[in-house]
Amino acid sequence: MPQERLQGIFTPNLVPMDSAGEINEPELRRYVDWLIDRGVHGLYPNGSTGEFTRFTVEERRRIIEIVCDQTAGRVPVLAGAAEANVKETIKACEYYHELGVRAVAIVAPFYYKLSPDSVYAYFREIGRNTPVDVTLYNIPMFASPIDLPTVQRLSEECEKIVAIKDSSGEIPHMIRMIQAVRPNRPEFSFLTGWDAALMPMILIGCDGGTNASSGVVPELTRKLYDLTVSGQLDGARQIQYDLVQLFDTMLYQAEFPNGFRAAVELRGFNLGIGRQPQSDNQRTDLELLSRSLQCMLAGHGFTDEPVGGCRAGDALSDGGLDAQEIGKIVQSVMAELKNRGMA
Amino acid sequence: MPQERLQGIFTPNLVPMDSAGEINEPELRRYVDWLIDRGVHGLYPNGSTGEFTRFTVEERRRIIEIVCDQTAGRVPVLAGAAEANVKETIKACEYYHELGVRAVAIVAPFYYKLSPDSVYAYFREIGRNTPVDVTLYNIPMFASPIDLPTVQRLSEECEKIVAIKDSSGEIPHMIRMIQAVRPNRPEFSFLTGWDAALMPMILIGCDGGTNASSGVVPELTRKLYDLTVSGQLDGARQIQYDLVQLFDTMLYQAEFPNGFRAAVELRGFNLGIGRQPQSDNQRTDLELLSRSLQCMLAGHGFTDEPVGGCRAGDALSDGGLDAQEIGKIVQSVMAELKNRGMA
Amino acid sequence: MPQERLQGIFTPNLVPMDSAGEINEPELRRYVDWLIDRGVHGLYPNGSTGEFTRFTVEERRRIIEIVCDQTAGRVPVLAGAAEANVKETIKACEYYHELGVRAVAIVAPFYYKLSPDSVYAYFREIGRNTPVDVTLYNIPMFASPIDLPTVQRLSEECEKIVAIKDSSGEIPHMIRMIQAVRPNRPEFSFLTGWDAALMPMILIGCDGGTNASSGVVPELTRKLYDLTVSGQLDGARQIQYDLVQLFDTMLYQAEFPNGFRAAVELRGFNLGIGRQPQSDNQRTDLELLSRSLQCMLAGHGFTDEPVGGCRAGDALSDGGLDAQEIGKIVQSVMAELKNRGMA
Amino acid sequence: MPQERLQGIFTPNLVPMDSAGEINEPELRRYVDWLIDRGVHGLYPNGSTGEFTRFTVEERRRIIEIVCDQTAGRVPVLAGAAEANVKETIKACEYYHELGVRAVAIVAPFYYKLSPDSVYAYFREIGRNTPVDVTLYNIPMFASPIDLPTVQRLSEECEKIVAIKDSSGEIPHMIRMIQAVRPNRPEFSFLTGWDAALMPMILIGCDGGTNASSGVVPELTRKLYDLTVSGQLDGARQIQYDLVQLFDTMLYQAEFPNGFRAAVELRGFNLGIGRQPQSDNQRTDLELLSRSLQCMLAGHGFTDEPVGGCRAGDALSDGGLDAQEIGKIVQSVMAELKNRGMA
Repeated sequence: MPQERLQGIFTPNLVPMDSAGEINEPELRRYVDWLIDRGVHGLYPNGSTGEFTRFTVEERRRIIEIVCDQTAGRVPVLAGAAEANVKETIKACEYYHELGVRAVAIVAPFYYKLSPDSVYAYFREIGRNTPVDVTLYNIPMFASPIDLPTVQRLSEECEKIVAIKDSSGEIPHMIRMIQAVRPNRPEFSFLTGWDAALMPMILIGCDGGTNASSGVVPELTRKLYDLTVSGQLDGARQIQYDLVQLFDTMLYQAEFPNGFRAAVELRGFNLGIGRQPQSDNQRTDLELLSRSLQCMLAGHGFTDEPVGGCRAGDALSDGGLDAQEIGKIVQSVMAELKNRGMA
Repeated sequence: MPQERLQGIFTPNLVPMDSAGEINEPELRRYVDWLIDRGVHGLYPNGSTGEFTRFTVEERRRIIEIVCDQTAGRVPVLAGAAEANVKETIKACEYYHELGVRAVAIVAPFYYKLSPDSVYAYFREIGRNTPVDVTLYNIPMFASPIDLPTVQRLSEECEKIVAIKDSSGEIPHMIRMIQAVRPNRPEFSFLTGWDAALMPMILIGCDGGTNASSGVVPELTRKLYDLTVSGQLDGARQIQYDLVQLFDTMLYQAEFPNGFRAAVELRGFNLGIGRQPQSDNQRTDLELLSRSLQCMLAGHGFTDEPVGGCRAGDALSDGGLDAQEIGKIVQSVMAELKNRGMA
Repeated sequence: MPQERLQGIFTPNLVPMDSAGEINEPELRRYVDWLIDRGVHGLYPNGSTGEFTRFTVEERRRIIEIVCDQTAGRVPVLAGAAEANVKETIKACEYYHELGVRAVAIVAPFYYKLSPDSVYAYFREIGRNTPVDVTLYNIPMFASPIDLPTVQRLSEECEKIVAIKDSSGEIPHMIRMIQAVRPNRPEFSFLTGWDAALMPMILIGCDGGTNASSGVVPELTRKLYDLTVSGQLDGARQIQYDLVQLFDTMLYQAEFPNGFRAAVELRGFNLGIGRQPQSDNQRTDLELLSRSLQCMLAGHGFTDEPVGGCRAGDALSDGGLDAQEIGKIVQSVMAELKNRGMA
Repeated sequence: MPQERLQGIFTPNLVPMDSAGEINEPELRRYVDWLIDRGVHGLYPNGSTGEFTRFTVEERRRIIEIVCDQTAGRVPVLAGAAEANVKETIKACEYYHELGVRAVAIVAPFYYKLSPDSVYAYFREIGRNTPVDVTLYNIPMFASPIDLPTVQRLSEECEKIVAIKDSSGEIPHMIRMIQAVRPNRPEFSFLTGWDAALMPMILIGCDGGTNASSGVVPELTRKLYDLTVSGQLDGARQIQYDLVQLFDTMLYQAEFPNGFRAAVELRGFNLGIGRQPQSDNQRTDLELLSRSLQCMLAGHGFTDEPVGGCRAGDALSDGGLDAQEIGKIVQSVMAELKNRGMA
């Protein structure tokens, strides 16, 4: 019996760490509850935001166990399941299936950048052997791209492949995928991973998103979704504008996902120290960033203002930081991203 | 007295050539009339689609003279005015101002890829000396990018700079520009040059577009604009889907802008041979492409079917060419574009 | 007591698999002996050519155990030691140190593309805690780049960091690194991972290379090294030309490292099936490629000609495959690489 | 009767401007004499360093007239001849032929980035109609790339195409071209435009270079060439190291070619103000750069030290500027270049 299609906002949740650098289980459980209470449609542990590559195999399994147990069926869980090779990945699919996840999400192979033929062969092998529904995860800035013909072939040949999460952020690419897949697989789901284009993505036909900002301001991301699907475009547009500003700030002003980690701290969670070491400069920058974020969040009533208060422009709705300043940061970071083959 | 803001669909018109390889003036005049009759809001001669770099200085001037004369004030003319250096470009601004154009559009310097500081200095010099309104033209795949802080500075310092045409196609970039500029310059106009994202661009706040497809199917591009601004999103979305397919086919299946030239021929104009020589293979491919385009256009009633008829899938509304096939072409062309530094 | 600097040709050895898809230990031992007998200066297990990411943690350890045991001190072993995070990587350093490796090689973090500051913090943490010498491994097409200032800082601050393997293939970059590091660390070693530029890299000051082709034609790579360091440039140049052709063919005509696997099979080893699944097309292409490679290798007397013989141009020294054909393949693959952020 | 092959160092000379912003003919003539006296093998006016795109058609012709007249046959002239389209370019070939140039150099079409087929068709049309020898000019960071199969085809089909100047700086690409072309066209000449790899390029088979640094330190570039071709590699390597440092400084620390213009001023020429406007920041930066360059040049005795003297590290042979500082600049500029599609 086919399950309901994947729809709405799935939160690629961060993982709180304790003072020993291990998974902070109580805080993770508290965070899961908090997200569900604020209306996210599903959870997506072991995504890129969740830093899946920085955990061991055993830790990745433990994260899914905790999230599934704490969620207890209240919302669907989409579990990141990519491992070292096809055999290990299928083992993860089997285990997460037993744990009751709605589906797994599998990023294309990374490090080596594979040809479309190899990406196809990889997912076909998984699609034929998985007991649980699979979401393709296309994130060309980090992993081998899953191109359009590959998505189309896999959607036609593998019933267990039921969705794609696309983090490229390109509207025309999303339109091409929908045109290529929907006629044959009307229940196939299209999710965007690019928060800065969430509203227009939904308007051109997406079913929802897996959006890191929903782990920070779940109320806002959910509201953007609701206003957009109900056609209240003026309100949606204003939230989308705010979200671009917040998302840019979290994404481009710190090493990913540390800006998101800092913002979730401001919402009242103890995330601890991430696994990627930071330089002294980075630690200082992150403190400054945290203050900017606090002003943005305070502007929406999500937190108090920092000691000393905020300038008028610091709150989200007032236009926030000086656009030229942010612009320069964004441009130089994008140049860097490009330099590193990410954009 | 400030003029009305730039708004709606401006057609970057092609230039018909005669059998001697010179500008075909009568056919250009007929084409101008035809476009205006079909509802485009303005004309944009000497754009990238109009192959401005392949003409001599004298020919570029002649093209504007003809278009202005034939338009005779029925619609505003946006004249491409980039020349070899600032002094020559300002001379062009002066001349086109005398001819009565509504504004000029000036692409950032190309060949050399300039730093933001140099792009700023270039446009500031022009902005201070032009007698006519200027539209910045950002097309990073061909020319030095005009980045966000540069757009903001120029909008604040130069009253004569009244608009930006952005052909990057990136939604978040457009949102960032609108956020940075509108508060101080509410009448500043934002136009998108990327047809494959026209509907969502308008929905997030653009004023219109300069869209090559409007030179081929002006009726359709205009209808997409009207449906979108009036909130008829289901209809708009379907046309946007069709337009992606048509635009992809014209853009990626022939050397730009030959796919567009072939399509305009199908609408009844004699465009002659373009200035860039073609190989034998290219000529053969273009004939095949022309047949595909004829089926697409016939599906909308814009032309007859080709001799021999069309397969079901060839018409625009039926999903057109096999998506996998198009997908492969698009992917490989995009790889090529990237290879050539265009994407 | 400081050890001798890393110098000469280190082979990033492939890993033979048995019919069950597990490490084929006897064949790996036989391959190690064969390489040492043919003159490579050292071995480099768990490199990119060795597909380290496709093995589990336990398997990576097993590979180093086997190689160290079989080598038995005849040549130095450089062990790839990158794991999921700093703590796990340091554990690997400790274990490989106990096994007696000469040094470890650690690739910069991948998947996420890190800023220079983060790459610095990562290696500094390792450099302060490793018991064994560390070679930085810069391969910007697969992992976060280790930029010049980072190399310089790490070389100045961390005595245990003794070398860099650079696979970017850029001559000026290598010159800049040597200029920045040698004055303070005269014993620091510079190795190139780009076989197609091995001779000129040595001539501008490199100490050697970790070259995948030395796993296929160790005699030839070693001869190229010897002729170059002894100033016999005409002979070296001819071998370098041959090596470009062979390297291009193995690298660009199959998914990496399958072209190298196919060539080592031709040298008499049973490498089995790699871990990345292949499509039917890929399997067919690999058979054709194997035949081309056999002709190239036969031209040097490294193997017999295939049944049916070779065309004149198939042997290495005759110019091999039609240059235009290879050129097209190289160009399109490079476009693809660029598309996937690798170049 | 075939002419001698192109060989040695051709200087892509800058153009001095007078106070009115026009070509400073007397200074250009004096500069030509100075270059010839210092041993460059040829001149290359209207190259990228000569800012050909920023002059009008008439000015480009005037530049060639002056250089040919002043050279008076002492060295061969390679004249940049690219114009708006094939017809205009052929007219330039004809005129420069009358003026007695040894050959023209024609960059592939730019702005639009063309497919290999179009680049082929463009040069074949020129190759069939030019009265004078043609050098292909491949500079993928600025113009459509001329790929390997295209070079091979053109070399086989067009006798008048006698050389390629390649500014990609990639050693393996140069090797592949030489392998593909030399067997059929032994007199075809390969010139590198990338000063930072000049010595290794010559060692793997190039015939020389068109190198911007030879317009600044012709003595040094010429010496590097002489030492390299005569096999004095230790001396050559040291000069190559110095040249990388000087070239990096001139190329990456100012908008191209302003670093080169500043350096030539230090050699005693009045170059005036370039045509691309500069911001106030840029003017200040250029003054600082000029001081650094003066110290580098003084270290070789090419000029006096600036007032106030130089720090030890400022002279070329001492390692010059702090490598980390230069490294950061180079990295960020390269990121920018990549951002702008140049690398």
